[in-house]
Amino acid sequence: MVIDILRASSSICVAFQTGAKKILPVATPEEALLFRDFDFLTAAERNAVKVEGFDLGNSPFEFENPLIRDRSIAFTTTNGTKAIRLAKEMKADKILIGSFLNLTALCKYLIAQHQSVVLLCAGWKDNFNMEDTLFAGAVIHQMRPELEEISCDSALAALTLYTSAQGNLLNLVNRSSHARRFKTLHAHTDDVAYCMQTDTLDLVPVLEGEYIVPLPKELPLHA
Amino acid sequence: MVIDILRASSSICVAFQTGAKKILPVATPEEALLFRDFDFLTAAERNAVKVEGFDLGNSPFEFENPLIRDRSIAFTTTNGTKAIRLAKEMKADKILIGSFLNLTALCKYLIAQHQSVVLLCAGWKDNFNMEDTLFAGAVIHQMRPELEEISCDSALAALTLYTSAQGNLLNLVNRSSHARRFKTLHAHTDDVAYCMQTDTLDLVPVLEGEYIVPLPKELPLHA
Repeated sequence: MVIDILRASSSICVAFQTGAKKILPVATPEEALLFRDFDFLTAAERNAVKVEGFDLGNSPFEFENPLIRDRSIAFTTTNGTKAIRLAKEMKADKILIGSFLNLTALCKYLIAQHQSVVLLCAGWKDNFNMEDTLFAGAVIHQMRPELEEISCDSALAALTLYTSAQGNLLNLVNRSSHARRFKTLHAHTDDVAYCMQTDTLDLVPVLEGEYIVPLPKELPLHA
Repeated sequence: MVIDILRASSSICVAFQTGAKKILPVATPEEALLFRDFDFLTAAERNAVKVEGFDLGNSPFEFENPLIRDRSIAFTTTNGTKAIRLAKEMKADKILIGSFLNLTALCKYLIAQHQSVVLLCAGWKDNFNMEDTLFAGAVIHQMRPELEEISCDSALAALTLYTSAQGNLLNLVNRSSHARRFKTLHAHTDDVAYCMQTDTLDLVPVLEGEYIVPLPKELPLHA
């Protein structure tokens, strides 16, 4: 599961709720622009800012726009895209996109799979970040009854952080470096509260070949 | 500050309390053995186990032995030695050795320096670990009144973990991968509680050239 809470994985989930057809994660803005010729919308963010000339940036509010319904989107972000590439290199059976918005849908799906799960926190430019770690803790907390012992210190720390802050996660995330980055930019500060909402969406985005698509509802999501 | 709570930094602090003269951190057991010719004691640990044929392993109890008084020790461990080398590459003005045993002595010294501090958690084979992170949180907690904002998510997470577990740190560390490693080996399980004691020692080990020595007491430790 690829986790980039602020904001790529949250925005991807919102896009599918709005009705986007598929999302193509690409490495660079230049690569995204190539797909305009094939009737794709383009979305690009670098250093927390929308890249000029693109249809969309990386704010979940932009992905609520009904104009994206039934459209394909070529998408590149500072951290999320790289995390998806790393997940592909790990040769996971399935690559899911995780956000607080679809936490319970993800956990129900994972529990039904009976497979090992790697929680891949995108972080910020290869550094640890708070919001992705808290989400990893939330997944472990919800899947706890299904788990054997926690044998990995990073999982134990993520769970301990989550349970210590549970009930006021937003307060902790507002003190994070990413939230402070938005404050410095005087932009996207509302995105933080948006992305910290839990279980507003009942869908599971999954990588199929090169594209992210929503898992069909007829699959046993709620086994 | 180099942090390897289980057990190198704790054992180094105990060695100086017992009266060791100086400690030479070396990369390999083979390198440590070379120094026998120069009247050094040798200490070596790999994968949480004392290397056969050495005078000492890496248990703090061993460094309470009065036979180490006034002796020089060539010391190599799985993670601690590498962390010291990394700290040297960072070209720090001073490299200190941190453990719960001398927490307050370290913080008082650091506060008096008015310098930036990097808390370098040794971890386990390049992975995150719980006990070093909790100690980093303890340092941040004690230095908090002297700090400006916490702008780094790993520091914020370490502080949050520490404050959430404060009062029962040992319980959390007993669930860590390192404590579980000792249980599997049926060895050194008492070392965990030993190394989680706070403020039993009033000394600050510091790297001078290639050697770790205790900072002289006449320096303004308690400014």
